[in-house]
Amino acid sequence: MQVEVVAVGTELLLGDVVDTNSAWIAQHLALAGVDVFYQTRVGDNVERIGAALRLALERSDAVVVCGGLGPTPDDVTREALAAFLGVELVRDDAVLARIRELFDQRGRTMPPSNERQADVPVGAGVIEQRRGTAPGLICPVPAPGGSPEATSPVSSQVVYAVPGVPREMTEMVTRAVIPDLQARMGGRSSIVSRVLHTWGVAESALAERLAPRLEALDAAGNPTIAFLAGGMEGVKVRITARSGTVEEAAVVLDTEEAAVRALLGRSVFACDGTTMEAVVGGMLQAAGLHLALAESMTGGLIASRCTDVPGSSAWLRGGIVSYASEVKFDLLDVPKGPVVSEVAARAMAEGAARVLGADAGLAVTGVAGPETQDDMPVGTVFVGLYLHGDTDVAHLRLAGDRTVIRQNAAVSAFDVLRLRLLDTHSASPGGPS
Amino acid sequence: MQVEVVAVGTELLLGDVVDTNSAWIAQHLALAGVDVFYQTRVGDNVERIGAALRLALERSDAVVVCGGLGPTPDDVTREALAAFLGVELVRDDAVLARIRELFDQRGRTMPPSNERQADVPVGAGVIEQRRGTAPGLICPVPAPGGSPEATSPVSSQVVYAVPGVPREMTEMVTRAVIPDLQARMGGRSSIVSRVLHTWGVAESALAERLAPRLEALDAAGNPTIAFLAGGMEGVKVRITARSGTVEEAAVVLDTEEAAVRALLGRSVFACDGTTMEAVVGGMLQAAGLHLALAESMTGGLIASRCTDVPGSSAWLRGGIVSYASEVKFDLLDVPKGPVVSEVAARAMAEGAARVLGADAGLAVTGVAGPETQDDMPVGTVFVGLYLHGDTDVAHLRLAGDRTVIRQNAAVSAFDVLRLRLLDTHSASPGGPS
Repeated sequence: MQVEVVAVGTELLLGDVVDTNSAWIAQHLALAGVDVFYQTRVGDNVERIGAALRLALERSDAVVVCGGLGPTPDDVTREALAAFLGVELVRDDAVLARIRELFDQRGRTMPPSNERQADVPVGAGVIEQRRGTAPGLICPVPAPGGSPEATSPVSSQVVYAVPGVPREMTEMVTRAVIPDLQARMGGRSSIVSRVLHTWGVAESALAERLAPRLEALDAAGNPTIAFLAGGMEGVKVRITARSGTVEEAAVVLDTEEAAVRALLGRSVFACDGTTMEAVVGGMLQAAGLHLALAESMTGGLIASRCTDVPGSSAWLRGGIVSYASEVKFDLLDVPKGPVVSEVAARAMAEGAARVLGADAGLAVTGVAGPETQDDMPVGTVFVGLYLHGDTDVAHLRLAGDRTVIRQNAAVSAFDVLRLRLLDTHSASPGGPS
Repeated sequence: MQVEVVAVGTELLLGDVVDTNSAWIAQHLALAGVDVFYQTRVGDNVERIGAALRLALERSDAVVVCGGLGPTPDDVTREALAAFLGVELVRDDAVLARIRELFDQRGRTMPPSNERQADVPVGAGVIEQRRGTAPGLICPVPAPGGSPEATSPVSSQVVYAVPGVPREMTEMVTRAVIPDLQARMGGRSSIVSRVLHTWGVAESALAERLAPRLEALDAAGNPTIAFLAGGMEGVKVRITARSGTVEEAAVVLDTEEAAVRALLGRSVFACDGTTMEAVVGGMLQAAGLHLALAESMTGGLIASRCTDVPGSSAWLRGGIVSYASEVKFDLLDVPKGPVVSEVAARAMAEGAARVLGADAGLAVTGVAGPETQDDMPVGTVFVGLYLHGDTDVAHLRLAGDRTVIRQNAAVSAFDVLRLRLLDTHSASPGGPS
């Protein structure tokens, strides 16, 4: 089974919008055992979308068309599909009712232009919309020469249309497109992969630590290891195994993961997309601890990442963004003096735990730039951690611009807490492995 | 002048990493007046990178190769360039010294594997690295049949190599690649565009308001208007004008922007990538006001976005993330009772201003999900705003999952403040226009 992705949108060609969808679809189809060899981008134009579909179906079994299902006049994927299939577009009353309902739920009136989103090519199935107003479409492609209406037994080719809004697309591809493709394939799947997230070790140093495994694997060819520079979330190590069955591939993966973890040690903090904050939150919850935050240079970033984790109220009391120095002095009892200092970080961590009534206090003060502060260079960061009656302060030097330094300081602060909890509690660093 | 982008990286083909670079490069070259008609993605493989370069130079004047300049063994763009050009790779001592210096600045020792990043194809120029360790390359392409060393006068084609790490790539393309291309073109440029950011109006409703302009422009063909669904940052309206000179195009753009703003009114909050928080911060600063935050469901997101703005210490005192109810009661004097309520939002806004010593208090309480709270449905949001002795509370109903609701609540809270400041102060809503 070979599938092709056609991303629709003039804004993609102009670079106004980044085509994250093609990569997401390719990745998730690959993990489902479906090959994607071609990705095309095409503008909002009926003829050019048709030409892209024609080319795609000459070399692939199925096509996922992404985008152009919106309500504005430039959204013409529905029209292009009908024209390509040689059928009429018919307004579907059930779909229209669903669109109205979605507007009602938001307390809004449906503008007339959204009615177009209920148009469905004759013979196509509808993928119900759950996150946005545009439904998806499953269009069986008639075999050449066959009648356009007599589709299903004659043809094995299919075109899926999904919205271009990423969160709508991902939900629809996961719920409807991949299961439909797998049903057509008879459920065969043979590639599995796992991503280990690391923090605190440069990509080149990771490669050196893993050199024995990389050499052994290069010879064997299966599994494989790749490094994914994850930018501000650390370097990721991806292990991919191929085998006749998913179960066999999983065994290969488990063995290799154990070997990699043995070489990388505590720098591996999570697996398969689990975030640093979710790992730390899980460790706090397991230890029955409640956390309070005091943030200066990170300005709420750490609190925001904590509260991104569902259920974080079980382990997070809250935080104080002490951006003005007076807030540090008056609310957190930081001694008057330089606020980018070990003394300030210590007082902030203890003050946060006291003011917010928590067992643990984590504090960050530093210089994000662009200006220096308290004669400290840009990138200076102090992380204070109050836990079990003791307060430690870590002094870091981070590189990058303001955004990078702030993000890096936030993850580094989580990592200080993670390593301390690993030392004092027997929680697992990266979830079940 | 026609340029092509070749994105290098097996992880791009597998979908592990989204190729944001091609779109970014295409967009910024388009704004510089350079056409990008082709984008290719290729794996980390010397032969296939060479084949992609050969094809690209058959149909384009220049190629920007992005990625594969890292220190790990799978990074082979340097080798591929040398092989394609038929020249040796030579280690450059000045480049090597610069890499060591970058490691020293971070207090780290350079691993031996990074030495490879100092390898330069004979005849190529080096683009100094400022954000990462990989230098960029400018490789003149010898005309067919010419000597590989005698490049510049003979050839007009060129290959640029830049790192795949986005923040390194963007800096290098802006600083070195675009100016070099413009010098080769003789500085001609004729396309300008401007993006207006809107909040609070659906894309379909914006299209209806702009219908008279859209019809008039469709007939004329210049300028053009496009809608960019910006996801959680509102809908963007992009106006693009073409003309013989940048100055002429800018006049067309100014006229059209005025017409669009007249139809969209206060829903336009910013222009060309300015964020909502930067706009609100600018208005606060102009009014001489200081802001305090109290966040429950947004959990530090608003504070984090405020402190992302350089210079925000001029108008932000700080914030309190009152995640646990006890923090609301004890620190902010919220009356005991339901914390997702108008009463709580009001007390939080006033409490934040009082505790943090600010003129204005902005508070958000609500239900981000996945669970309901205080019998309120997921998506319920109360925004409290204390300003000039008065406190107002806005009651919103937002749709989406936890992440979307939180982001949407944050931007909506900023917008409540923005509209109130527009009513009470004569600041401009979207900067100079």
